[in-house]
This record gives sequence, structure tokens and C-alpha cells, in this order.
Amino acid sequence: MDNPVLVDVLRGAVVESRHRGAVVVADAGAALVFALGDVERPVFPRSAVKALQALPLLESGAADRFGLSEAELALACSSHSGEDLHAATAAAMLAKAGREPVCLECGIQHPMGAAAARALAWHHQTPSALHNNCSGKHAGFICAATAMDVDVAGYVTVDHPVQREVRAALEAMTGAPHGDALRGTDGCSIPTYAVPLKSLALAFARLGTGVGLPPLRAAALARLRKAVAGHPFMLAGTGRFDTRITEIFRERVFLKTGAEGVYCGSLPELGLGFAVKCDDGATRAAEVVSAALIARFLPLTEPDTAALKPFVTPLLTNWNGIAVGALAPAAALAS
Amino acid sequence: MDNPVLVDVLRGAVVESRHRGAVVVADAGAALVFALGDVERPVFPRSAVKALQALPLLESGAADRFGLSEAELALACSSHSGEDLHAATAAAMLAKAGREPVCLECGIQHPMGAAAARALAWHHQTPSALHNNCSGKHAGFICAATAMDVDVAGYVTVDHPVQREVRAALEAMTGAPHGDALRGTDGCSIPTYAVPLKSLALAFARLGTGVGLPPLRAAALARLRKAVAGHPFMLAGTGRFDTRITEIFRERVFLKTGAEGVYCGSLPELGLGFAVKCDDGATRAAEVVSAALIARFLPLTEPDTAALKPFVTPLLTNWNGIAVGALAPAAALAS
Repeated sequence: MDNPVLVDVLRGAVVESRHRGAVVVADAGAALVFALGDVERPVFPRSAVKALQALPLLESGAADRFGLSEAELALACSSHSGEDLHAATAAAMLAKAGREPVCLECGIQHPMGAAAARALAWHHQTPSALHNNCSGKHAGFICAATAMDVDVAGYVTVDHPVQREVRAALEAMTGAPHGDALRGTDGCSIPTYAVPLKSLALAFARLGTGVGLPPLRAAALARLRKAVAGHPFMLAGTGRFDTRITEIFRERVFLKTGAEGVYCGSLPELGLGFAVKCDDGATRAAEVVSAALIARFLPLTEPDTAALKPFVTPLLTNWNGIAVGALAPAAALAS
Repeated sequence: MDNPVLVDVLRGAVVESRHRGAVVVADAGAALVFALGDVERPVFPRSAVKALQALPLLESGAADRFGLSEAELALACSSHSGEDLHAATAAAMLAKAGREPVCLECGIQHPMGAAAARALAWHHQTPSALHNNCSGKHAGFICAATAMDVDVAGYVTVDHPVQREVRAALEAMTGAPHGDALRGTDGCSIPTYAVPLKSLALAFARLGTGVGLPPLRAAALARLRKAVAGHPFMLAGTGRFDTRITEIFRERVFLKTGAEGVYCGSLPELGLGFAVKCDDGATRAAEVVSAALIARFLPLTEPDTAALKPFVTPLLTNWNGIAVGALAPAAALAS
């Protein structure tokens, strides 16, 4: 089955490029409210499920035991840009658990944010694992391992107790088996499991509502959503889509990017979750689709609509600041 | 018509993403030797036709009058990474025509190469129009305008004598009309015209062979090809696909990337030109397709094949250097 075009990229009046993919909106009872394309096909959620991967951090008692702040919990759910405050916050999480940055097994990455990468160079600093976009998640894993009283070393491996807990949480939230046949290795070296797109939407409907979840899990997810809503910068970084959308909608929208054109999100007041996968892995298109879903489903004030518009139909400007084109969601997505 | 999948992106054993597109190989008589997908649909070639856009630089007599070097001619055909030598070479071209960098109308761009952008910051330098990936092409336009004895200001506009010459060269080389209805504005503010993909392959068959061209134009194109083959670094930059392929194959392959997933190329010894457009604008896929075309059509020694392999099926490694996946061309492309 060929997935439909979800986003057109226009230059002048001409369609220059186009992005295909699948999108699904589900409620916490797994009913599909909206679907385009093949929503059964297994998709690697990558970083889009970091909030779910953070469940062992809370459920192990680590977050309370080490007194993690809301900002730190938000960072545990983030793919951050590697700005100073992100790196410092990850270091603070580790320090609270009595750990050093050397424990991080995510690898060294130049800050994902181009401006942050240049700023680091400007100050003659070299990047460390703290600048890796996943350092908050990994600091969370290390806190969890510490609270679980297991060896921290090797916490990224598939059989480590932390990753076993992560997998169990993902299986319970998505209702989909996380087997070895559909396991890959993520950019930060932890396992990632491909699951049907509709299962991701279900997981995020549950994340946003707590419906059908054990009370402690529902409370943990509500705490993570509140933490992110209060600290949008921690979720991504300066000017990033996830941060801007969270700044606008706060607790009304929880969403998260994953590499290769994935978005997962919750619209708690509607009891809905959504999941997006662009076939080609394009983040720019997955952002447009996510913004279009918000515009279609969430009741919006005029200021909300105005604030959202630059994300639904982003202008493309060139090096002289001239508008040369735009991205536009397919008619099937429009509200 | 739906274009076929040209490249799969694998994570572990699972297809994570896939890229569709069209590809065509033609000879200088416009016979199609190979085609996948819709090769009639108009495509913006963007920077892939910079060598053709450099024709007025040679045909106006500017290159000779100002004594431009081979390295400078190569830069005129480039989308460079903004490394020091690129910026310095663009400045030298301008100086030879008695012009200053302030004449550049391409806009200021942080170096496209991430390492070059960080290096600039490390040295506490701010980017200028010289670092714009198009500065060599623009320096060429300014040299041409100077030799043509027309006002340099506004050389990026559609009615400027230089852009009229550029359009005429593109129309003659592609055999396709370059009308206003299919005109867009490029990243560097010059006009770009959408033409059928097969017309781009024809233009590059002519570029590589001179067949059917006026002798002076054929000589100008041969001079540009020789310049690029001798200065692969100038074409792109450290580690970039265009530079690496040119280092390996020199005058046997002339190719050039264009934004939004375009490649155009020549295989002179075979009398063939090719053009690639990935529907979704993905450069990573257009590179794989171009490498696969070289592997399929060009007679290769074993060392050639070995050198080309990392570009036909590039490994994806993560921040810890672990191979987590690969890109692979579709079977229909394989040799």
C-alpha cells in the first residue's frame, strides 16, 4: 500500500518536493478517530517515545529519591539542542545520583542545534556526551539504575535491567510486542523497537489521559507532561518546533519528535493520541503534519490559530530573507 | 504517476524510511538509455546546473580577461562548504575583476559544512556572503557582468543581462523552454526554472561530450570539466560526496548536487548524461542513486568498485560509531 502525500513543498507556484507518510489519531480505547495511509506497518518511534522511556525513572523511585526537578524531568523526555542549560541540567541530574558524566553511554555529539554548536566552538569548548541530544534521557537511565541498585555500566544494552523495564513499559503502553525481530539500535545506542503506528497513537492517548493505566503509572505520566509543559525549552531548544508548540499550548498538547520523520503526541482534553511517520524520514514534513493535526482537532482561539499558522504552512525564506516557497499540508489533513 | 522507491533506509533488518524519485540516463541525441519514474515532470535543478550557469563567465571572455585559474573556475561550478579556501578563492575571483565582496548578492550564510561553521566560530569570525555556498557562482556572475560592461548591481534579477545569458544557455543546453510559469527563486536569489528531468540528462550528455554544441561552447564546457576534475575540493568540500566522487573518478565523472534531492551528471566516455530527483528532496538518497548509476554504467576496476561501495550502500553509524543501519539502492538501479 502506497502512503498518500501528506505535505507539498512549493517553490513559487511549483511543487518542488513532496512527502508521503501515514498518520493516525486514536483514543485510549484504541478506536481510530482519523487515519491516512498504512497505520499497521511497524515504525521505529525513535526519540518520540522518550516520555515513555522515562517511566522507569519515576517508577523506580529515582526521581523522588534524588529530588529531580521538573526541568530535569522535562530534560529526561527531550531531544535537546545541546545548549549550555541542557548540558548543565543533564550534569546536575547525574550529580544528584552521585554519578559523573563519564557514565553516559550515549556518545559524544556536537550540539544538534547549529547555533549551540557554533557557540561552543566560539568559547573554545569541545563537545561531550552531555551535549548529545539524548543526554537527559541517559541521565535518567543512570538515575534509575542507581535507584534500582544495579550496575550502571552497560545500561544501554538490551538485557540491562533498565532497558528491560523500558521495554516492559513500552509494551504495556502500546499494547504491541517489542520483539527481537523488529529491534534496531538507536542513535544513542539503546534498543529501539518498530511497532505499528496505530499502537503509538494508542500509547499517547493513554499518556495524555491515564485511561486504562495503573494509577501510579498514570500519575507518573501526568507528572512528566506537567514537567514538560512547564519547561518547553528543556524538551528541544531555542526556536525548535517542539519547544515553540509547547510554549503556545502548554498542557493542551504534549508532543515529541523522533528521528526519521516521526512525531507522537497527545491532546489530553480530547482524550486523543496521534502518531505520524513520514516515509522518507523528513522532520520538516512531520512537523507540518503535527501542526495540521492540532489545527484540525484542537478547539483554538484566534490567537492560537495565528500562533500555529507559521507551523502549519511554514514559509521558506532564502539567504536574503526573501520568501521563495512554503510547505503545505495535504487537503486530507486540513481542518 | 507514482515514482518508484529508489532507496531504502535500513535500521537493523527493518526498512525504516524510503525515498521515491525519478532517474534518467540519456545520450546527447536525447535518446533515453535508462529511466525510472516520471522523467517528463518539471524539476527545479537548483545548483545542479551551476556548470551551465557558468557558461556566460567563459563565453563573455571574463575568465580569460581576468585570468581566472582552474581552481576559480571550479569554484564557479560549486556548492561549497564555506571552508577558508573556498571563501578566499571567491574573494580572489572578485579582486581579479576589480570588485569587492560587498557586490555579492547571494546573502550571508553560515558555512554549509558544519565543521567549517564551527571553525569560523572558533576563530571568532562571523560569516559573510563569501561563505555562502554559492559565492563562487556569484563571483563568476560578477566577473561576467564586468566583462560585459553592464551594471553589476542587481545581477541576480531575472532581467539582468547576466541572468538573461544564463537562461539562454540553459534553454540551449536542455532544449526546454525556461518560461516564467515554471520560474522560482533559488536560495541565493537568482531565478531557477523547472524543466523535465530528461532535459537535464540531455544537457549533461551534451556537457560531457560537446555533441551538437557550437565549438566554442563545447570548449568552454570541456574547460569547466577539466577545472573541476583537477580541483575536487572546490566543487564541494571536505568529505562531501561530490568532492569524493570527483577525487576517485576525475574526468570520468562530472556530477553536481542541487538542493531538494537533485543530481545531474555526465559520464563523458560513454556519451551519457544523467539526472536524479528524489521526490522528497533528500540529498542522502540522491547521492546513493548517483553512485548506483556510476556503478551500473561505468566500467570499473576492482579498486574503483571498492572506492565506490561506501557511497552505493552507505553505512549509518551512531554517536558511538556503531553501525546501526545502511542505505541501499533499489534493485532496479543495481548493476
